[in-house]
Amino acid sequence: MTSLPKLILTDIDGVWTDGGMYYDQEEVELKKFHTYDSAGVLFAHYLGIPVGILTGENSNIVRRRSEKLRIDYLYLGCKDKVAAANELCAQIGVTMQDVAYIGDDLNDINLLKLVGWAGVPVSAPLYVQKFANVNLTKKGGEGVFREFVEVILGMQLIEHILNGVKQVNQ
Amino acid sequence: MTSLPKLILTDIDGVWTDGGMYYDQEEVELKKFHTYDSAGVLFAHYLGIPVGILTGENSNIVRRRSEKLRIDYLYLGCKDKVAAANELCAQIGVTMQDVAYIGDDLNDINLLKLVGWAGVPVSAPLYVQKFANVNLTKKGGEGVFREFVEVILGMQLIEHILNGVKQVNQ
Amino acid sequence: MTSLPKLILTDIDGVWTDGGMYYDQEEVELKKFHTYDSAGVLFAHYLGIPVGILTGENSNIVRRRSEKLRIDYLYLGCKDKVAAANELCAQIGVTMQDVAYIGDDLNDINLLKLVGWAGVPVSAPLYVQKFANVNLTKKGGEGVFREFVEVILGMQLIEHILNGVKQVNQ
Amino acid sequence: MTSLPKLILTDIDGVWTDGGMYYDQEEVELKKFHTYDSAGVLFAHYLGIPVGILTGENSNIVRRRSEKLRIDYLYLGCKDKVAAANELCAQIGVTMQDVAYIGDDLNDINLLKLVGWAGVPVSAPLYVQKFANVNLTKKGGEGVFREFVEVILGMQLIEHILNGVKQVNQ
Repeated sequence: MTSLPKLILTDIDGVWTDGGMYYDQEEVELKKFHTYDSAGVLFAHYLGIPVGILTGENSNIVRRRSEKLRIDYLYLGCKDKVAAANELCAQIGVTMQDVAYIGDDLNDINLLKLVGWAGVPVSAPLYVQKFANVNLTKKGGEGVFREFVEVILGMQLIEHILNGVKQVNQ
Repeated sequence: MTSLPKLILTDIDGVWTDGGMYYDQEEVELKKFHTYDSAGVLFAHYLGIPVGILTGENSNIVRRRSEKLRIDYLYLGCKDKVAAANELCAQIGVTMQDVAYIGDDLNDINLLKLVGWAGVPVSAPLYVQKFANVNLTKKGGEGVFREFVEVILGMQLIEHILNGVKQVNQ
Repeated sequence: MTSLPKLILTDIDGVWTDGGMYYDQEEVELKKFHTYDSAGVLFAHYLGIPVGILTGENSNIVRRRSEKLRIDYLYLGCKDKVAAANELCAQIGVTMQDVAYIGDDLNDINLLKLVGWAGVPVSAPLYVQKFANVNLTKKGGEGVFREFVEVILGMQLIEHILNGVKQVNQ
Repeated sequence: MTSLPKLILTDIDGVWTDGGMYYDQEEVELKKFHTYDSAGVLFAHYLGIPVGILTGENSNIVRRRSEKLRIDYLYLGCKDKVAAANELCAQIGVTMQDVAYIGDDLNDINLLKLVGWAGVPVSAPLYVQKFANVNLTKKGGEGVFREFVEVILGMQLIEHILNGVKQVNQ
């Protein structure tokens, strides 16, 4: 494990959200994001670390949120997250040990086992939480992605960023 | 009671949701589901156990969620859940003692009293909870259907499934 | 105070909801109701007690919910709740001491002070809660209207009703 | 610091809301407000104190809520909150020491440091909370703006207002 990750990857449902999926009677689906996670992306970008989303869902909802926050890599309908992460690692020339990943369920376990920094929200099933090596205190949808970034970058570094950046929420 | 149920039935409002019904001014209604319950269906299907929904509501919202999760039997506008369950038992050749059911309110009590495995979320009224014979810790809308399936199938069996299945959330 | 109320009145925002008002960018507004409150109406109707809504909001959202639950009296955009309650009392020939009312905020205080049974959700401001004479444990939007009805009718009576009624949620 | 503020300013996301941003697949975004905050505006207006919103978001959602509550000043897409507050102070002839401000994140810190009354919801990051000089107990979206107003105006004054005003929620 290096001192700082070179790539930060994240799941969406259950991490950026509380797992909720709002359905109407026809074709509408809503997800509820938290404004606090936007600063997680900003902190990473401030240090030149790209951020990617790997989600099994194939939803334009995530695309919209991703575009607003200027996410660097977006994998929708991602059935094999390890393959996607390997592809990204090769593309930007880093190893799995340089990657930080936060996920919360079955299809995240294989990737959580491979990366240098593995985060899991406290709202996830216990049999997924046991694959985390970064301690988190928040649930999905409460800003746990931001917490993950703050922890892996270190609060000293974050405080340094805070002195230069005051306009971030989205 | 046999060692594993042969049919898993579930109510929706207050079980797959927190009981919330979102109304707008015209004709829209929303329900909020939890991605975690999808794995409950997957675990059952992995063992060849069919899953059915019995709901008193007659809503296309539930139909949409049901189709996404490949639910085997769907009863909308179900006014007599015991009759529906009896019909299903006859159709697939099992008895009420082979059935697991999770519900949370008055119209679930008669069925909860008849089935082999009876689950009730901790958010339900106490006078409904007393008909449960399976201990649960979650509220409706927090993934309590998944918890119900995990408990009645047994975590040993779930761990076995987990080794073969890593892509499930929907 | 008589042994049972002859009219049950209720506020909506902060009682049937958690106070949340969902806005979109154009003209949509949503409210989130709880399925559990529907049984409160049913219990009252089972005993022949009419139920009325008094809300300061003038929203079709409440009209829709009211129609689904077959509410007997609906006052939308109600600026003077005492006047509305007096009008209803005269119309059906009961006194304020026969009325049970649950509300949660400033415009409910005057009516709470007059009625025989006064309920306030625990989520309300303390300076409103002090006008309650019925002890409640739930917050707005968690089924506190149902709890109010169960408490004022008495659980013995509810248990009696439960033996006859098993199909209620809406 | 004077005895009462002459201008009350507030952020929106994370203060009037829990930070949640609801997205659909196309162009819809929802925010969830709390009816309780409306009384905060009413209390201020009762004493002739204007209320302004400073939000980094450029959303018609906030405009709609602002119009309903008759907010006096509305800055959407506000990238420099100190500049906006200075502009308002000059316009109405007050100093930053006369201003009360409640915000919850990075882009609020500079303004929180300058104003006479600085409030931060308990749901905000700790490194923002440390800039508060008014003690609050509520989270964003729970009515914390109302709590802020009640605290800075003083409950004695609020009780006085309560005797004159009973119709406020919106």
